[in-house]
Amino acid sequence: MKFDIKAKDLLSSARAGTITTDHGEIQTPIFMPVGTIATVKGVHQRELENDINADIILGNTYHLYLRPQTDVLVKAGGLHKFMNWNRNILTDSGGYQVYSLSANNKINEEGVKFKSHIDGSYHLFTPENVMEIQRKIGADIIMAFDECTPYPCDYKYARRSMHMTHRWLERCIKQLQKSPELYNYKQTLFPIVQGSTYKDLRKQSAEYIASVEAEGNAIGGLSVGEPDDEMYAMTEVVTHILPSDKPRYLMGVGTPINLLENIALGVDMFDCVMPTRNARNGMLFTAHGSINIKNLKWKEDFSPIDEMGITWVDTTYTKAYLRHLFTVNELLGKQIATIHNLGFYLWLVREARKQILAGTFKAWKERMVKQMANRL
Amino acid sequence: MKFDIKAKDLLSSARAGTITTDHGEIQTPIFMPVGTIATVKGVHQRELENDINADIILGNTYHLYLRPQTDVLVKAGGLHKFMNWNRNILTDSGGYQVYSLSANNKINEEGVKFKSHIDGSYHLFTPENVMEIQRKIGADIIMAFDECTPYPCDYKYARRSMHMTHRWLERCIKQLQKSPELYNYKQTLFPIVQGSTYKDLRKQSAEYIASVEAEGNAIGGLSVGEPDDEMYAMTEVVTHILPSDKPRYLMGVGTPINLLENIALGVDMFDCVMPTRNARNGMLFTAHGSINIKNLKWKEDFSPIDEMGITWVDTTYTKAYLRHLFTVNELLGKQIATIHNLGFYLWLVREARKQILAGTFKAWKERMVKQMANRL
Repeated sequence: MKFDIKAKDLLSSARAGTITTDHGEIQTPIFMPVGTIATVKGVHQRELENDINADIILGNTYHLYLRPQTDVLVKAGGLHKFMNWNRNILTDSGGYQVYSLSANNKINEEGVKFKSHIDGSYHLFTPENVMEIQRKIGADIIMAFDECTPYPCDYKYARRSMHMTHRWLERCIKQLQKSPELYNYKQTLFPIVQGSTYKDLRKQSAEYIASVEAEGNAIGGLSVGEPDDEMYAMTEVVTHILPSDKPRYLMGVGTPINLLENIALGVDMFDCVMPTRNARNGMLFTAHGSINIKNLKWKEDFSPIDEMGITWVDTTYTKAYLRHLFTVNELLGKQIATIHNLGFYLWLVREARKQILAGTFKAWKERMVKQMANRL
Repeated sequence: MKFDIKAKDLLSSARAGTITTDHGEIQTPIFMPVGTIATVKGVHQRELENDINADIILGNTYHLYLRPQTDVLVKAGGLHKFMNWNRNILTDSGGYQVYSLSANNKINEEGVKFKSHIDGSYHLFTPENVMEIQRKIGADIIMAFDECTPYPCDYKYARRSMHMTHRWLERCIKQLQKSPELYNYKQTLFPIVQGSTYKDLRKQSAEYIASVEAEGNAIGGLSVGEPDDEMYAMTEVVTHILPSDKPRYLMGVGTPINLLENIALGVDMFDCVMPTRNARNGMLFTAHGSINIKNLKWKEDFSPIDEMGITWVDTTYTKAYLRHLFTVNELLGKQIATIHNLGFYLWLVREARKQILAGTFKAWKERMVKQMANRL
């Protein structure tokens, strides 16, 4: 993996860069659509490529491990081939889902024992076997196995957990050294900074993670319920410490405003279910604010969904039509809204990049943050 | 509306023709995907046009009347504009849904009083107001208001109902004469032959319908549970009587085999929810038989969904991937299967047309009927 910084903003910590992997280039800042179980819900791969123009998508190790299961992925030749997606993929470590979805999970130094949310069967995730699973899935960027602490989290627990995450990281690295890639391309490990909402822990964790000298670094344990200001404060502490010549990935974030604020703090990569999940509930994001398309006010609004939108759905379909589809609970409504929202998120990060390159990011960001807070 | 017959098969009653309306040409025999509530479930309009290549789709008057309601459609400028579909549309008369979906429907000479399946509100459909509603929806081909008898149906009821359907037809025609098109294109009324599964009633009804000299004619009241042989027997009686220089539309039919057998009997147009509904349940139709994609046997079958398929999904995705999507109940599974099935149905009628034009229809049909009966 290569990371070249093309421009740095003078008035903020924002950067524009290019990550290059064996599956192609990723222009940063980037948003990664979430493709949980080998599909971005409701969207065809060709739409992701041609219309939304996503450079990279995310897969969830926990979900893929349970279904279709890693042996099927190995037989397919990896996730790229299984789902016919030839651009980049990042997989998380499964940690977050183990804590949030499975029942009765038990964490100890060895790893996490958990009960499948599908069939109640018991499984064990350890740093070692999660690296093995990610080798088999075959994403371009893979994540260290960590504990994602909840919010709020008491200081002692957060500190103990952070240290365990650091020890787990060493085990992840050792495992990967023993066990090379299964397919004909490189996989890059990103370690994860933890430390909950405690500045000293975040500092300590970021310093430790920086010392590992990985090719990219992630910030975990945020966007778990804390106020935005706490999130930004933690990001700021961490991005000052993580090496500036490596990409920084803020996991699970966030709203369009969250993206811009964190880009300003030096974050390069994001993922979040918000654009896709909210789309399926009829919430659209636009440059001028958010829209609840189910509202009666759109019933006879025959204007395009989003005149400024970058995807063909924005100008092909009207608000009244999309509202109708949600009113009658038709699949096509979810499909249209998802393409719109992902198109908007990708537009937003690309536009941020342009503004960084042009030296106009800060003022643009301030204006956008105000605009996007509107409810239309 | 214009109908030109390009070729007639010498060994059967099959014909290849072209219907021309203000929204373009329809190559017959044709299958019309069902777009119930202003959407073919799970399929974008551009996919219908570019990938499936449907010349015409069907809308359901009953559903559109209830939601989004006709006033919204009028304000949009008609259904074509509302859903942004610029090719042909046919609407049914709402009759079938009134009998099958609504509770407490009461039929008398005036029309049908029914209770909405959405909110329990009461409504009245009469030949007159159904014509008004179809004027407002604005389909290119509109259907007379009829009573669709169930199967089995006793002879006396079938005869009485058939005569009422004939009287209703006169009221439909009168109403349309009083009330011209609302938009800048022609609408063509198709009357409907009824008579249940009684040959003498079917004959009588077909003779009456033929006497009206409409620009196209439909056969209703079939595909309601009767054995295939009874359906074919009724079709045969009717197609011998209906004018041969007008298109014949067999409503609500059917399986791929039903299509070919009825084409051989002189039918030109079909519609059915089968390809779309079955797709959403994981059943795929192919030239070599049907596939239940949920079966374990496809779990590690990484061959294309259908190597002979005409749509891009057929060669982009594998059986194992599609099975996975159904196993985890993902929207994309339904989307892919729907595009495949509609693509197959449209391929089937286009291929039938080619074979008719080439004079090879009969032998091809016999081979296909055998092949398509397989379960793969």
